[in-house]
Amino acid sequence: MKALSFEIEGVSTYGLVTSAGIRAASTSFRQQFPDLKAVLTAGTLDNLRANLAPIVHSSNDIHYLPLIGKPDKILCVGVNYRPHIAEMGRQVPSHPVLFVRFPGSLVGHEEAVIKPRASEQFDFEGELAIVIGRNARAVARDEVADVIAGYTCFMDGSVRDWQSHTHQFTAGKNFARSGAIGPYLATADEVPDLPGLVLSTRVNAIEMQRARLGDLLFDIPALIEYCSTFTELLPGDIIATGTPGGVGAARKPPVWLQAADRVEVDLGPIGTLRNTVADE
Amino acid sequence: MKALSFEIEGVSTYGLVTSAGIRAASTSFRQQFPDLKAVLTAGTLDNLRANLAPIVHSSNDIHYLPLIGKPDKILCVGVNYRPHIAEMGRQVPSHPVLFVRFPGSLVGHEEAVIKPRASEQFDFEGELAIVIGRNARAVARDEVADVIAGYTCFMDGSVRDWQSHTHQFTAGKNFARSGAIGPYLATADEVPDLPGLVLSTRVNAIEMQRARLGDLLFDIPALIEYCSTFTELLPGDIIATGTPGGVGAARKPPVWLQAADRVEVDLGPIGTLRNTVADE
Repeated sequence: MKALSFEIEGVSTYGLVTSAGIRAASTSFRQQFPDLKAVLTAGTLDNLRANLAPIVHSSNDIHYLPLIGKPDKILCVGVNYRPHIAEMGRQVPSHPVLFVRFPGSLVGHEEAVIKPRASEQFDFEGELAIVIGRNARAVARDEVADVIAGYTCFMDGSVRDWQSHTHQFTAGKNFARSGAIGPYLATADEVPDLPGLVLSTRVNAIEMQRARLGDLLFDIPALIEYCSTFTELLPGDIIATGTPGGVGAARKPPVWLQAADRVEVDLGPIGTLRNTVADE
Repeated sequence: MKALSFEIEGVSTYGLVTSAGIRAASTSFRQQFPDLKAVLTAGTLDNLRANLAPIVHSSNDIHYLPLIGKPDKILCVGVNYRPHIAEMGRQVPSHPVLFVRFPGSLVGHEEAVIKPRASEQFDFEGELAIVIGRNARAVARDEVADVIAGYTCFMDGSVRDWQSHTHQFTAGKNFARSGAIGPYLATADEVPDLPGLVLSTRVNAIEMQRARLGDLLFDIPALIEYCSTFTELLPGDIIATGTPGGVGAARKPPVWLQAADRVEVDLGPIGTLRNTVADE
């Protein structure tokens, strides 16, 4: 199942990708559950298919929204692929490196990501993100499948000079509308071989990053076990799992995103997240 | 004016401290603005005094709630007083050091803060926090007074071993219910001399930290200017401004909080935040 959040004719809604096209949740379902986060919180995602409005939309007719509008938490994992650890000159971490993005730092699929006026060092990072499906604290490795609603693509747009202002990443990772999430929430049945899946990030159709998800240093069970030790994960929470080698900052000379550049984060059956860069 | 969020007879509400005692918002005002964040978002805090229910409560009758229940952002400033920079062995930063706390990591005044099972290194940090009063992006130093709703006390409870698992502070600063905020939102008129104000943190009535707010390395205008450059500050957002020297981790031997310890963050006319430690 592939769920999505979108706007059509000025109305914010959500729905599913069906074989015929995109269908929104029925009005009555949406009155009960106003957004995808509410659907996950109610544990009723499986009932969405039986509660769709009859109209079929093409993806050209809709405006994609950030997959989850107001997650309680967006946890991001840094330096979680060995080639990226090496290119950034960092040590292999003994625990997951976590930073936070605020919802306002993310846009949806096909929305413009914003290169800030305050910097010339706007960089791409393609990632897999996990969407949490239920309240979860102190989850053991072998229980993580139960707490995952599904997977999506994540563009952890990074303002490198601000990221290195201090030892904490917060400022450089939170410029307004500098990252993206979507287009779909793909449930586990869409992804039979997650470790074998290839994550590819392209800028203007040129592949810049490529890795297998099986190459994650801290894998998905490890990340959920670690995070749920200190915080209660809630339905709709996002964990972005980190980016492979090949980011713009590590290239010689560095490659910085410019207005009109097109960034694609391709995760095969999970979807491809596309965004064009615009100046602030 | 001193506003607060509290629960009485099982109902979550908010109100003001008046000369007679604590009075909740009237039912009709609360129907329009369900919580303090909604009041700030509507820009109507000044109208709260004229819209109070007649009943007067004593502070013993109410259960304090975290001052703002679900802020969009809780930005925390690290190493922002020179004695604390020295005791932690850090360099004087050239920009504000920012990390993030999630709302679930905070409790209200007189609620228990939780020492996690996963650690023996639970530490106190007393701080002043700013509460944002309006949408604010790219605010210049001389405009910051307009965007501040008021001030409150903040206990940035820190799980030191988890904080130093990696170079990012996130895990150690986000254990569930490990910090606190409140009791009041004190508006600027309550604090005629903010730089002269003394911040004192006591554990079991013994003063452990003491500083003047004028000793902040990055002062309040600098913090708001910096943060609003990358993110849009929203009504109800919190900026915790950092802790002075004297934390438990830097003492020889270290002083770790234990169950039944009583932590007080005293900011004079802004209020005194009191929490007792409980084991998870």
